[in-house]
Amino acid sequence: MTKLYAKDLMNYYETKIEFQGFLEKVRDLPYVMFLILRDGTGKVQVTIEKQEKNQDLISQMQHVGLESTLCVHGILKEAPSVKMGGMEIIPERIDITSSSLPELPFDYNKKDNSLRETRLDYRFIDLRRKENHLLFQAATLLEHSLREYCVQHDFMEIHSPKISGAAAESGAEVFSFDYFGTTAYLSQSPQFYKQMAMAAGFDKVYEIGPAFRAENSHTSYHATEINMADVEISWIKHFEEVMDFEEAWLKYAISKVYEKYGYVMEQEKISLTNLDVPFAKMTFQEAKSVLKEHFHYVGEKEEDLDRKEENLLCKYAKQHYKTEFIFITHFPFAARPFYHMLDENGNTCSYDLLFRGIEITTGAQREHRLDILKQQILEKKISLESLDFYLDFFSYGMPPHGGFAIGLNRLLMLLFELDNIREATYIYRGPTRLNP
Amino acid sequence: MTKLYAKDLMNYYETKIEFQGFLEKVRDLPYVMFLILRDGTGKVQVTIEKQEKNQDLISQMQHVGLESTLCVHGILKEAPSVKMGGMEIIPERIDITSSSLPELPFDYNKKDNSLRETRLDYRFIDLRRKENHLLFQAATLLEHSLREYCVQHDFMEIHSPKISGAAAESGAEVFSFDYFGTTAYLSQSPQFYKQMAMAAGFDKVYEIGPAFRAENSHTSYHATEINMADVEISWIKHFEEVMDFEEAWLKYAISKVYEKYGYVMEQEKISLTNLDVPFAKMTFQEAKSVLKEHFHYVGEKEEDLDRKEENLLCKYAKQHYKTEFIFITHFPFAARPFYHMLDENGNTCSYDLLFRGIEITTGAQREHRLDILKQQILEKKISLESLDFYLDFFSYGMPPHGGFAIGLNRLLMLLFELDNIREATYIYRGPTRLNP
Repeated sequence: MTKLYAKDLMNYYETKIEFQGFLEKVRDLPYVMFLILRDGTGKVQVTIEKQEKNQDLISQMQHVGLESTLCVHGILKEAPSVKMGGMEIIPERIDITSSSLPELPFDYNKKDNSLRETRLDYRFIDLRRKENHLLFQAATLLEHSLREYCVQHDFMEIHSPKISGAAAESGAEVFSFDYFGTTAYLSQSPQFYKQMAMAAGFDKVYEIGPAFRAENSHTSYHATEINMADVEISWIKHFEEVMDFEEAWLKYAISKVYEKYGYVMEQEKISLTNLDVPFAKMTFQEAKSVLKEHFHYVGEKEEDLDRKEENLLCKYAKQHYKTEFIFITHFPFAARPFYHMLDENGNTCSYDLLFRGIEITTGAQREHRLDILKQQILEKKISLESLDFYLDFFSYGMPPHGGFAIGLNRLLMLLFELDNIREATYIYRGPTRLNP
Repeated sequence: MTKLYAKDLMNYYETKIEFQGFLEKVRDLPYVMFLILRDGTGKVQVTIEKQEKNQDLISQMQHVGLESTLCVHGILKEAPSVKMGGMEIIPERIDITSSSLPELPFDYNKKDNSLRETRLDYRFIDLRRKENHLLFQAATLLEHSLREYCVQHDFMEIHSPKISGAAAESGAEVFSFDYFGTTAYLSQSPQFYKQMAMAAGFDKVYEIGPAFRAENSHTSYHATEINMADVEISWIKHFEEVMDFEEAWLKYAISKVYEKYGYVMEQEKISLTNLDVPFAKMTFQEAKSVLKEHFHYVGEKEEDLDRKEENLLCKYAKQHYKTEFIFITHFPFAARPFYHMLDENGNTCSYDLLFRGIEITTGAQREHRLDILKQQILEKKISLESLDFYLDFFSYGMPPHGGFAIGLNRLLMLLFELDNIREATYIYRGPTRLNP
């Protein structure tokens, strides 16, 4: 590619260059005009002396809207007095490659001066803010490192179907549509199809892809379309193996992000989480005791944790274990879908992972024995017929297995201490937000 | 994880081990019983001497169905006479971790002995075939390497929304559904939203994700849900830059696959493509001349290429340029959507990439100038209102940009010389196939 990036300019002093970027600022002084151009890697100053020979250039630049894109042809000079990188371009010619309307719908550099909904209406402008570039650069590395860790450990990547003839898991809160005369459903999770990989003899699999929830939720951490990472592992003996894997996997990927972007995050007052200590672990029962005895709080539900309880447990982990991550294990069967394996006490062989006050993962060992699985389905008052295709997977040999799923937008929101999942999503989708 | 894999067994001679796997074969001889166990990394023999002390073990194994999963506890012995890895396990105890029905719906090792539709009905069994493991292992590395190349070149990963309030591109052949009282559409491609990233100042982006087509096509290379890789690059001066990037990117990833799996592919009689020569290049006009003069063939359409033409052009490239890849450039505007940039002759600044007889990519420079873009929309008889949200992206500064999309199932099908996209898809979806 021919594009010369701002970050590489220092290699081109005294050279005739072309530089392309957005016009971020114009300072029109009596004797000189300064332009600030920006690309994704940085900024550079263009200096136009108000001399006779520059007259056309000056009048051209007096009429161009901020945020237009320009291609500047000129000589790059070292200029120690210029704060921005100690360099400037002395232009010979400037091409306006695209023109911006004179006024932007909002000032994208001042996040708090406009309504979130306005920013989302013009998400492509909102994303121009420096912190948003950092966020999606970090997200890129985070995801890539998650996959890299899987590849290093001989996992196979799958792409489970997002459209299906059977509604997954619950059957509720699922989008449905006409599919050549029959009804199809949008996948809520790769759950069934990643378990299918186990039946196919794929020892370990991962997938990162969209999941869809027709939930009419308007909270700060729900969306109708999310980016989910799923992992499933065969031949396990205990769901502790899944937890251990997830802890190592998350630490690997978050460390990679901190190595590269940690110092910029700290400049932006984003606090880095401590990865040098083990994640805290506690059974569901222990958690309920801690909540009662330590916080004098009894949650809304006996068989599950509510938001406040999750929050308090994270506080506790930070105080007592110096970590912001805590696993809560052995949830009651009432709080979990039918496919969980149960232990000798009738609790599920499952866990939630909480981080900074919010649940980010559910993981478990799955019930792989067909007869017990059927019993559990009936206990949940689901008809066996509705799960025919899924039960097939268990009929011709199915390794013991377990896995987990993690919502990456939510993880990103928490890692970057954002107040809303909308800020951690490229294009957010919710019950009242389907555009742009 | 505690699982001991077949590939690592040689490090455990004379040790008490546990080995888990599918029961692939039983040879019940008068004096000895051999079991062959399989995991995703290989096979191992379990040897049970017909002695008094093994009576329970033998009768247990005489009643277990093939493809059940077992956990064998025993001593691993070096046994040079055993063809399978020169080792055997002498078992003390065997746990049957899951039982298979006595008869499988088809013999998955003999692909050609059953109908494709039967194999797809039981895809999880079909996937147990060794070649399918190889295929998805290679697919994992292929995709990972495609992403790795992007990360190495400072691209950002995006996840464009798969549900949207506006039907993309054509408006035809799109699935639609009720979305909290309004109509939503399933994304046919990330086209508009990857261009949005350019407006957001993301210099270069990639995405690998699902795309949905409500096409009632029953060919061997169409599906209603595919796995697409999309790339979009800002600040380009010519679509040649996009082509050059794609060529280097594909060569990088395919080389990685060949490095690791090339020798196994060759054992399976899959021919490797030559990556040491440049991809061939030809304009659309030149291509039509070659077809006429060299092959005496005139295609169905004047402004586009049909399947046979694609096929012949690939033959030509192989003969004359020693490559199985050929770029065809400058397609007529009639054959392309409105958003393509046009050159001075009114042809699009676009290309198709053909490989082994089939089109795998369409790429182009996009029209980024709002006024010209609007003209082109009207020329295609599309209303500007229907593209309001998209046109917004071009109103506040839009860098010159271009990119491409490539269907990864199709690429995989061709790389592995499979006869049908159904074979190169984890779970295929077509007009009459929505299950499992």
